[in-house]
Amino acid sequence: VTDEAARLKSVWRHAASSNFAEGWSAGELALRLRGGSDANDDCAILDVEGNGSLVIGSDYIRGVKFTLFELGHLGFHDVGWYLAMANFSDVAAMGATPVGLLTVIRYPREMTEGDFDEVLAGIAEACRAVGANPLGGDVGSAERLFLSGAAFGICEKDRVLRRDGARAGDLLVLTGPVGTPAAALVYFDHCKSNGDQLSRELEDELLQSWRRPIARVGEGRMLAELGAHACQDVSDGFRDTVEQLCRASGVGCRVAADSLPIEDSVCAVADLAGLDPVALALSASVDFELAGAIAPEDVDRCRERFEAAGRELHLVGEFTAEEDLILLSEGGGHPLPGTSWDHMTDDPAAVTIKATQRR
Amino acid sequence: VTDEAARLKSVWRHAASSNFAEGWSAGELALRLRGGSDANDDCAILDVEGNGSLVIGSDYIRGVKFTLFELGHLGFHDVGWYLAMANFSDVAAMGATPVGLLTVIRYPREMTEGDFDEVLAGIAEACRAVGANPLGGDVGSAERLFLSGAAFGICEKDRVLRRDGARAGDLLVLTGPVGTPAAALVYFDHCKSNGDQLSRELEDELLQSWRRPIARVGEGRMLAELGAHACQDVSDGFRDTVEQLCRASGVGCRVAADSLPIEDSVCAVADLAGLDPVALALSASVDFELAGAIAPEDVDRCRERFEAAGRELHLVGEFTAEEDLILLSEGGGHPLPGTSWDHMTDDPAAVTIKATQRR
Repeated sequence: VTDEAARLKSVWRHAASSNFAEGWSAGELALRLRGGSDANDDCAILDVEGNGSLVIGSDYIRGVKFTLFELGHLGFHDVGWYLAMANFSDVAAMGATPVGLLTVIRYPREMTEGDFDEVLAGIAEACRAVGANPLGGDVGSAERLFLSGAAFGICEKDRVLRRDGARAGDLLVLTGPVGTPAAALVYFDHCKSNGDQLSRELEDELLQSWRRPIARVGEGRMLAELGAHACQDVSDGFRDTVEQLCRASGVGCRVAADSLPIEDSVCAVADLAGLDPVALALSASVDFELAGAIAPEDVDRCRERFEAAGRELHLVGEFTAEEDLILLSEGGGHPLPGTSWDHMTDDPAAVTIKATQRR
Repeated sequence: VTDEAARLKSVWRHAASSNFAEGWSAGELALRLRGGSDANDDCAILDVEGNGSLVIGSDYIRGVKFTLFELGHLGFHDVGWYLAMANFSDVAAMGATPVGLLTVIRYPREMTEGDFDEVLAGIAEACRAVGANPLGGDVGSAERLFLSGAAFGICEKDRVLRRDGARAGDLLVLTGPVGTPAAALVYFDHCKSNGDQLSRELEDELLQSWRRPIARVGEGRMLAELGAHACQDVSDGFRDTVEQLCRASGVGCRVAADSLPIEDSVCAVADLAGLDPVALALSASVDFELAGAIAPEDVDRCRERFEAAGRELHLVGEFTAEEDLILLSEGGGHPLPGTSWDHMTDDPAAVTIKATQRR
């Protein structure tokens, strides 16, 4: 079913790459398309002649159809925040400074004014958090709350981060822990109804990954300024992200299991559900962390810069000329485990559990 | 219920106008917000320092929930085209050159590859028609086909057309006929099921307004170049558009009934349904024509320019210092009739019929 999405995207790329305009001007302002939908990046890139680049991308979120919303663990403020951050994460992944967010908010007749205001407040709060402006968009009715957005940002022309620049020998870096949103689904949708119970603290850690995900804007800017070779946000799971970076760049990757940042709550959920914690951390998780490729000689500078800024940077692997995806652990090298986000499933937790069960 | 939407928009404007960034830079590229969601224009406007301006807007369309889609008169190609044109119409209304379109396409499990491809082909065809590029966006699943978009364009800084610039004495111009989409709903959703039947030719004219609406990009550019004082696209009905232009500009308007471009099919539907054809033409119709304000001394130049380009330009009224909306007809002056698009109704045709019945 994930193949289905890939196939459809490839149809779109084909349609999109034929006979379209690629340069525009109005007076002294001229734009040229550098990478559109055919490039399969987080955002499209347009160069502003004589200046820098614009990046622009668009994301729908399930919102009220999030499992955790349906279970009562997320509110309207949370989905507003999530909508904005999901869109800003694509801008962050390009190494760009977010500028604006357009939103489509279609709401059902029965929605209260208070709930609607909460959505707006969540969007506004997330815009403020990344220094961007909510530029309006479309407000109207639909049979349920329907949320989508488009975010854009600006970047120096020669610093835009794409997916296809990783080189053999580059180090794979990661800006924060992965797998928590996937573990949250497994816990709240499965473990808890089976009578399992984690501490309030661990539950909060799991929920926070859905309630207040953070687009890694500062980290993306630093990676761009430090000359990272490639970058992508972790929005379909870390394994999926590594695979996409490698495919786009024509390389492979060795990931070191013990270097992966994994939160305690993820290990606790893996324990409850009999799952491999590393496989769980690599699976079908909308993490919004950034994964990047850095030349070995730049690593020390990167580490210093991130440390000075009080941001996390984890060295978690190395890109290789051999195009395999390998997990290095005590037992040696194995194919990189984990499953990608399956946008067609009604039960993502069940898919994750099935794919990450301890052997 | 339309008040509801207005109220919500005002909440959003309030949220959006407080404490957000309004300037951004990356290297040599700097943007400054000129008008965001608080300006209540068709698009947000960002000035590129030293160059021109970007305009950007976002629209959702009902698509498979269009009455005419549900009745079998529209196909997937049509809704793809409509999605793109609805978004480009906002760019056209600013006097800008469309550059790119981002799309959100969420599709249900049971959708066939052929139908999906038709949506893409419709989007692609509309992008080509206006010289823009489909920049990708979000593809994934949902319980039904959900379509939204965001379009952006560029304009010379001092030529961006806003809604608030109309002055008393300016002439109200219109780029083409209004009311056909509203008449199509009345005919196919009401008259036809009552046994009424128009000729194939008139039926096609009605359907074409939904199947192949045209964003008036060339017209918007000409209005900008000719120094129009204000502009807006007719997307909630012509009466609503005149009201919004007047409210934003602090003026009133006298519309001359016999100057309004109204298609034969609209008159025929009015006749069948016992409606006032002018009121029908002014009502709740997503027309995608542009309504603009032009200084009297510029009118001849405008007419010549539009004629040379083979485009329509109708002088349909005059803006006034008195803030009333008046329709001038043989019987003298009356309040401007017509009803605005009611985004909450399940039966837009019934609303239009009720509001435009012949006295």
